[in-house]
Amino acid sequence: MLDNLQFDQKGLIPAIIQDYKTGQVLMMAYMNEEALKKTIETGKTWFYSRSRQKLWMKGEESGHIQEVKEISYDCDADTLLIKVEQTGVACHTGHYSCFYRDIEGREVEEKVFDEEVIYAPG
Amino acid sequence: MLDNLQFDQKGLIPAIIQDYKTGQVLMMAYMNEEALKKTIETGKTWFYSRSRQKLWMKGEESGHIQEVKEISYDCDADTLLIKVEQTGVACHTGHYSCFYRDIEGREVEEKVFDEEVIYAPG
Repeated sequence: MLDNLQFDQKGLIPAIIQDYKTGQVLMMAYMNEEALKKTIETGKTWFYSRSRQKLWMKGEESGHIQEVKEISYDCDADTLLIKVEQTGVACHTGHYSCFYRDIEGREVEEKVFDEEVIYAPG
Repeated sequence: MLDNLQFDQKGLIPAIIQDYKTGQVLMMAYMNEEALKKTIETGKTWFYSRSRQKLWMKGEESGHIQEVKEISYDCDADTLLIKVEQTGVACHTGHYSCFYRDIEGREVEEKVFDEEVIYAPG
């Protein structure tokens, strides 16, 4: 089924992550074929980090995992849309969604947690 | 205000387009700085076509324009989220959203129009 998808020259495909209950868009990140396979197998979102050049499971450090409810892809088959149940918050800044600023740079959504709380040791 | 944004090596930034009323994700396409400026100035979505290497206004041929309601960007400042009021349908296939297939390839959303109707001459 993954044969239908168009991964880019780097072997990546963007995945839009959406809250399955409210429809709020939470984040966008990239998957390679392995990340997508692990996402399907485990029912949790996995991504490929372009900066760290490795797979990571969303929430592996913070516990703020995403349980997959539905995966769809677009007409060009080059973008994924994944509806999830978010535990905690999606953004490493402590905001529920990564899209917390408007185009003027104003914070339009408040933090739920402080970063320090999310990534505090033990 | 656009100085905050991270355009990629090709000068592009992905823009997720979402129905402002229902929260349904309609499509994802790419903007360059000029497309984003025109989007802000005109209140309609403009994109950069990577295949045709030119700017286009969504709906310029079909009349199925998108009126911009809200623009936000994510924590990395490398993805836009644009809430719109969609006239007609977002997808050139005649579906309201481009995300009309699940990961198994099954059509999970029906067409609203036939392509032939959308792009019929005069």
